[in-house]
Amino acid sequence: MGRLTGGDPSLLRRINSAVVLHALRAADSPTLTHLVEVTGLSRPTVEGVVEGLIEAGLVAEAPADEGTARRQGRPARRFRFRTEAGHLLGIEIGPHRVAALLSDLGGRVLGSAQRAVEESASADDRLEKVRAAVAELLRRAGVARSSLRAVGVGSPGIVEADGTVRLGTALPGWTGLPLGDRLRRSFRCPVLVENDANAAAVAEHWKGAAAASDDIVFVLAGLSPGAGALIGGRLHRGFGGAAGEIGALHLLGREATPEKLLSTTGQPLHPLDEAQVARVFALARDGDARARDAMDRFLQRLVHDVAALVLALDPELVIVGGWAAGLDDVLEPLRAELARYCLRPPRVTLSVLGEAAVATGALRLALDHVEAELFAVDGTVTARR
Amino acid sequence: MGRLTGGDPSLLRRINSAVVLHALRAADSPTLTHLVEVTGLSRPTVEGVVEGLIEAGLVAEAPADEGTARRQGRPARRFRFRTEAGHLLGIEIGPHRVAALLSDLGGRVLGSAQRAVEESASADDRLEKVRAAVAELLRRAGVARSSLRAVGVGSPGIVEADGTVRLGTALPGWTGLPLGDRLRRSFRCPVLVENDANAAAVAEHWKGAAAASDDIVFVLAGLSPGAGALIGGRLHRGFGGAAGEIGALHLLGREATPEKLLSTTGQPLHPLDEAQVARVFALARDGDARARDAMDRFLQRLVHDVAALVLALDPELVIVGGWAAGLDDVLEPLRAELARYCLRPPRVTLSVLGEAAVATGALRLALDHVEAELFAVDGTVTARR
Repeated sequence: MGRLTGGDPSLLRRINSAVVLHALRAADSPTLTHLVEVTGLSRPTVEGVVEGLIEAGLVAEAPADEGTARRQGRPARRFRFRTEAGHLLGIEIGPHRVAALLSDLGGRVLGSAQRAVEESASADDRLEKVRAAVAELLRRAGVARSSLRAVGVGSPGIVEADGTVRLGTALPGWTGLPLGDRLRRSFRCPVLVENDANAAAVAEHWKGAAAASDDIVFVLAGLSPGAGALIGGRLHRGFGGAAGEIGALHLLGREATPEKLLSTTGQPLHPLDEAQVARVFALARDGDARARDAMDRFLQRLVHDVAALVLALDPELVIVGGWAAGLDDVLEPLRAELARYCLRPPRVTLSVLGEAAVATGALRLALDHVEAELFAVDGTVTARR
Repeated sequence: MGRLTGGDPSLLRRINSAVVLHALRAADSPTLTHLVEVTGLSRPTVEGVVEGLIEAGLVAEAPADEGTARRQGRPARRFRFRTEAGHLLGIEIGPHRVAALLSDLGGRVLGSAQRAVEESASADDRLEKVRAAVAELLRRAGVARSSLRAVGVGSPGIVEADGTVRLGTALPGWTGLPLGDRLRRSFRCPVLVENDANAAAVAEHWKGAAAASDDIVFVLAGLSPGAGALIGGRLHRGFGGAAGEIGALHLLGREATPEKLLSTTGQPLHPLDEAQVARVFALARDGDARARDAMDRFLQRLVHDVAALVLALDPELVIVGGWAAGLDDVLEPLRAELARYCLRPPRVTLSVLGEAAVATGALRLALDHVEAELFAVDGTVTARR
């Protein structure tokens, strides 16, 4: 607040450019006169900005309005934003699969591709699958690699600002991996790496369960639970990118890991074995006492983790996702427990995007990056909420 | 992001006004020509804005530069922001005292006043003490009540957007109290009510331990613990104003309340009895085994609460405040435990502002409100970080 640009003319030129571009996208092929009116900028300023945007390939002259042409002689020039001026990728790199989504600059999805990956695959093998999926996707869509403006990536772990995985125990060879740098070798455009739960939160806000909520927590309710939060519609990464990595909280009490809690044999489950978890949930549904106990223990832990997030953040909405199956069973107990312990219990719902959440969120982050370049640069203006 | 004002001319006029006012404050008595240069706006636009600001009493003509006057005949007019155009109050309403700070529109503190209050005082009696302290403060400073532009208030409890206390167990008669409305009877200007821990967080960021950090958690480490968080330099209130009210978390586990944990007799301490707590801490320092056990139990609980906040939010800095004495003893254990459990442990430090934190934060919130009115209105531009 209060850091408007007092004395930087080049910054104000960029702001003017952003204002004009935004007005261009908001209107249907506006004229220069319209742009001057809605922006409040001078006509020479608007003309200069529009010429610059045309040179940059971001704006094109639109067909003139025929009616106007006949009435007034030479028709007023009209302009449009070129959504086809570039493309974006959203990539999920998960334990069992990699997936990629392709879109234009307007965020319209043009295609997708995916590959199955072994849980035990090395980082090199996993990245090779990513490259193969992306190559197939671009080829099928007929989009040149040089047309990519930004690539978003969602993956488990705590991710540094430069895309290095600070800590990622879910995938072999992930901790310490310079994931951003590795992927940048394949692309000439910016590559943005984000924690998978964070990306999923962004996705549900864009086109999922949180389309109408700006303050949400997305809980990836796997055996290694993680969470992503939006605050005021913006992703909350935390100072070191570790926000929502609530898994360590149980170590402070007497509670055990989900892997142990869900065990019906005394042997911990394998962290990534979703099928085994689904079996425990199914047994519990069928009335198996040991499975029911295991599920109750797991639920207690999940409630505790989610409650900690809810008490700290006070979101409007909690979205539970991450497992393909079985989560229906956690929803009601979670709601009931949160209502008991939270001063202002949030709504609790299941993920709408399911398996597509992480790649969709990664795509949105790529789109955000490009829009931030187009509509604002570091230190410039954006709308307050 | 990307919500720049495409098509609202009145909004753009307000933005222009904010840009000019900001440039006016940033420069030392600038000329119109300077304002035109740094804002990129047209001269007529700048002239119109400046005239409007003079009419509103926010801007005055400054003495002309003598040198320029002699060289070029009629000197260029110069302008300045009038910090004396209005005043602000920051008020703390606590269990044991009420306090008020007075400042000008630049945030310069002009005076303070306070009153002791009984813990058991009714809401009416407490508010009467507030009125008395404010009246004394205004009289001593020679400032008319009509000159107040905004009043900030910090008080325990979950506070609704309109200033109603949704839940406040620390003060008698506080839950359900329309605190904002009650205080608005005494003032003609906006009254902003905020949770005390939130206000303290804002204060430490303004002029305390967090002056260099934008991502902080302030823990009011009393027997009823609460916390305030800044994210990216902004207060995080949560969707329902309950963010950081972490006190219920222990109910989920087997841990008890701090009142019980710190007891050395089996009888819980009184929630507000800081002297009793200080005695337990002192006994523990002297090697009393029971006091040491009590303090260890209390620390374990505090660590758990703070860890939940840290894992959820990932702040750069945790500031511990709230008790006048004894907190030195919690700092080192808290650091050690957080380092064990947090993937990225934050720095941990004591409050710099101490008892002044809540009123100072309330004052800053009043100043923020006025600056938001001056420099941006709902939906308009502010600087991105």
